[in-house]
Amino acid sequence: MLHDVLRRHDAQFFIMYASSRNPDFYYATKFRVPDPVFYMIGDDGTELLIVPEMEKRRAERESRVREIASLNDVGYYERLKESNDPKTALTETCIDLIKTHHGRKILVPEDFPAFLFKKFIEEFEVEVIENPYSVMRAVKTADEIEKIWKVSLATIDAFRYFTEILRKERNSELLRDKVETFLYSRGFLAFDTIISGDLESSDPHCTGHGEFSSHVIFDVFPKSRSSGYHSDFTRTVLIDRNQEIEEMLDACIEAKNKAIMMIREGVTGEEVHSLVCDILESHGYSTIRQKAREGFIHSTGHGVGLEVHEKPRLYEKGDILKAGMVVTVEPGLYYERVGGVRVEDTVVVRKNGCEILTKFEDRVMI
Amino acid sequence: MLHDVLRRHDAQFFIMYASSRNPDFYYATKFRVPDPVFYMIGDDGTELLIVPEMEKRRAERESRVREIASLNDVGYYERLKESNDPKTALTETCIDLIKTHHGRKILVPEDFPAFLFKKFIEEFEVEVIENPYSVMRAVKTADEIEKIWKVSLATIDAFRYFTEILRKERNSELLRDKVETFLYSRGFLAFDTIISGDLESSDPHCTGHGEFSSHVIFDVFPKSRSSGYHSDFTRTVLIDRNQEIEEMLDACIEAKNKAIMMIREGVTGEEVHSLVCDILESHGYSTIRQKAREGFIHSTGHGVGLEVHEKPRLYEKGDILKAGMVVTVEPGLYYERVGGVRVEDTVVVRKNGCEILTKFEDRVMI
Repeated sequence: MLHDVLRRHDAQFFIMYASSRNPDFYYATKFRVPDPVFYMIGDDGTELLIVPEMEKRRAERESRVREIASLNDVGYYERLKESNDPKTALTETCIDLIKTHHGRKILVPEDFPAFLFKKFIEEFEVEVIENPYSVMRAVKTADEIEKIWKVSLATIDAFRYFTEILRKERNSELLRDKVETFLYSRGFLAFDTIISGDLESSDPHCTGHGEFSSHVIFDVFPKSRSSGYHSDFTRTVLIDRNQEIEEMLDACIEAKNKAIMMIREGVTGEEVHSLVCDILESHGYSTIRQKAREGFIHSTGHGVGLEVHEKPRLYEKGDILKAGMVVTVEPGLYYERVGGVRVEDTVVVRKNGCEILTKFEDRVMI
Repeated sequence: MLHDVLRRHDAQFFIMYASSRNPDFYYATKFRVPDPVFYMIGDDGTELLIVPEMEKRRAERESRVREIASLNDVGYYERLKESNDPKTALTETCIDLIKTHHGRKILVPEDFPAFLFKKFIEEFEVEVIENPYSVMRAVKTADEIEKIWKVSLATIDAFRYFTEILRKERNSELLRDKVETFLYSRGFLAFDTIISGDLESSDPHCTGHGEFSSHVIFDVFPKSRSSGYHSDFTRTVLIDRNQEIEEMLDACIEAKNKAIMMIREGVTGEEVHSLVCDILESHGYSTIRQKAREGFIHSTGHGVGLEVHEKPRLYEKGDILKAGMVVTVEPGLYYERVGGVRVEDTVVVRKNGCEILTKFEDRVMI
């Protein structure tokens, strides 16, 4: 695919400067490295990873990239002696390497750092493109879907555990700690888990503080500690009777399930988002497409994989869905004087429909 | 400080586009947000955070920044309708905002993303600078040092626990899981913990696989789940007698302790690194300044804080140390046919010396 991208842009190299904290870099190289390194792909199919000396042998063994050079190998330390500045030496080393290999036009991803970009444009024609790996990552392989499914199973177990302890415990911080510890001990890392009740839940990303009594949003998006893949799941648990909250929740459940019925290859994220807005508006709630500041004030969903938020968007101008994409569907309603509700599943887009990875009843009461 | 930087560069705005995964953003705003947002600082002392509608009220409550605007407030959705492209709409929104506030010259950090940078340079004079917050972050407050000290205590506890279970268990994966679980249950997150024994330890960042019998490197750099601050600590545990390994370890211990004796305000990271190289070379080992591919093949140390690797560098061209900086000192020696050793402490630089936060005996045998 990179070869096609380079040819289409008549460019000789695609270049990233990133660590494995960048999921595109990790997806492309399968190399875990704490600090940023250069990764270059040439139009002749060659690939090169330029790493510090200490990472060289490990990169040769662990990464998917076949050609590995150390900073030593490419003359970084000579340039460092001249310039006295590591960033300048790094930039010059990379520029010389591109010139040696007859690079005239290069492609860089949108998140390519400015300190390199400003020097590159003095030497080459540079085009900024959406990272082809983030496009590739949006469509999952069967193996990736299985990894996300495994996280989803653990997520449902964690929610079941949550509803059990919720009978005795109604403190956000304590519950969050218990849920995250439950997941960690099973091999999954969750943080910023949202357990926010009563009026606090009117703030969609508020993680929750202190005691609650009426209802609670549980939103967890754990990552497998071994595979690095995520799942994403939300339920609103009703504790006390509260007609306004129940009606809001029922509208969200209807919107979520109708959206899920609609999702299949070829439908756009924008269409799914519009349907959710239509349904919530038909129940008298305001939505973000009306520029509302309360009501449904976020997108309908997003891709899930190595990142918890990735392509595609289920939102205004959202992409066309393809089979193999894994996305969330998560309508919510938020009113400051009432509180908030949200219900969310992670689903796999298929040719003729979609498959829910986080199966659990929608209306949960204790 | 930002005010001074802007005045010195005769610029009207410093602009970041980042999420709280970026420690400079988090340090500056104290706002946890999963996806990137704009953060602008003006030369008149004003600050503005531009967030999605759903984050607005939370940003008002949780962030340190006083002025918060939603994408709605700054006309993003009108521009999205025109351009049909979220990235373009975002860029134009920010450019218009800068123009409205009479920005002519702007400063951006080195990691500012290329997709924004290339449009900004068409409209303004743009200078790429080292992020002033990463410079500020290098010198810790007493409160930050206490946070790092607390992680350091837990780190030592984890090592003590490791040496206890090491009497029965000699499997890298099992030990890593136990150590990381031990830390997690106490409120600390460790991953990629290095427990690598025998010949595998000759690869400095190899995390370790399977059984070992001769010696083992234990290198853990946990983060507090509440404060976000790290510590960093390494010991090499001798199991079987192995003269070559013991001599290598003794040389590293000598280098570490002499480096620590040298560290005080005003000394440079380069001088500390040179001393470590001198000592290791005097024992007949090769070092990275000789462009060696085996021996001491990494830097002497790095700052520790919200990131496990941050400013300053204790390396070639390393910065001047200031009181309040927290740095690692971690000489290591690595030979493919023998194995590797490393010993590391995290220390606070003081006016007349330094203080070790990770106190533990250097030579550990079981």
